Amino acid sequence: MTYYIDDLKPGMRETYERTVTEADIQKFGEVSGDVNPVHFDEEWAKTTPFKGRIAHGVLTASYVSTILGMKMPGPGTIFMQLLTRFKAPVRIGDHVIASCTVREVNAEKRRVTFDCDCKVGDTVVLEGEAMVMAPARPKA
Amino acid sequence: MTYYIDDLKPGMRETYERTVTEADIQKFGEVSGDVNPVHFDEEWAKTTPFKGRIAHGVLTASYVSTILGMKMPGPGTIFMQLLTRFKAPVRIGDHVIASCTVREVNAEKRRVTFDCDCKVGDTVVLEGEAMVMAPARPKA
Repeated sequence: MTYYIDDLKPGMRETYERTVTEADIQKFGEVSGDVNPVHFDEEWAKTTPFKGRIAHGVLTASYVSTILGMKMPGPGTIFMQLLTRFKAPVRIGDHVIASCTVREVNAEKRRVTFDCDCKVGDTVVLEGEAMVMAPARPKA
Repeated sequence: MTYYIDDLKPGMRETYERTVTEADIQKFGEVSGDVNPVHFDEEWAKTTPFKGRIAHGVLTASYVSTILGMKMPGPGTIFMQLLTRFKAPVRIGDHVIASCTVREVNAEKRRVTFDCDCKVGDTVVLEGEAMVMAPARPKA
């Protein structure tokens, strides 16, 4: 399912939910090369302001990308820009709800901007903005 | 090895290099939930402007985070903000060189901004900016 550029209107919203697992942190460390002890060493992480291990911020950011690529606009989308502000830590076992809401549609350039956030319960852990090029409706 | 806030000066630069593998794409799909066919289905991807499968943009963005968390400033850094512009596709087998250069240091707030890019050969595939809180030097 893809939303084409002329389907998209300000206020439309999609979400993606995910519970962060130990395996997710391990795999993210492998693919990124980021094996910082704040993600992998509980004793070390306890000495930081986070008081324990946290997930990689860019792992949480990936959920925003998942919405844009998989749900809205969906396959055919070209991801152009992502701004993420990391507001609070995400820990193993946290259930993250990511959401993207259409802010503006430029039909001529096929550009769509989104307001994005990720929450754990009532806590905003990430907020940001994304810009994509949405697919054109195939000619009949 | 960590750079403390008073070690960091504009112009300092660190890099991280990585060749993107099939396994990286598979694992990134697993941890993010992004199994968009542009990343996993070569036949489908051939029908897109990319003319074949591409890596997840946020995978490339993760290399920037790896520099900040592992190399400069390194462990103890608090990641606050990341802006990434996706300029060109990255494909399986591409050798990506990510770099972060200190732009500005605010010693009082311990905030450091970086100009960041990722290149494949001479092609800039990602450019952006990051802001972190760098660690304070431990008291003697």
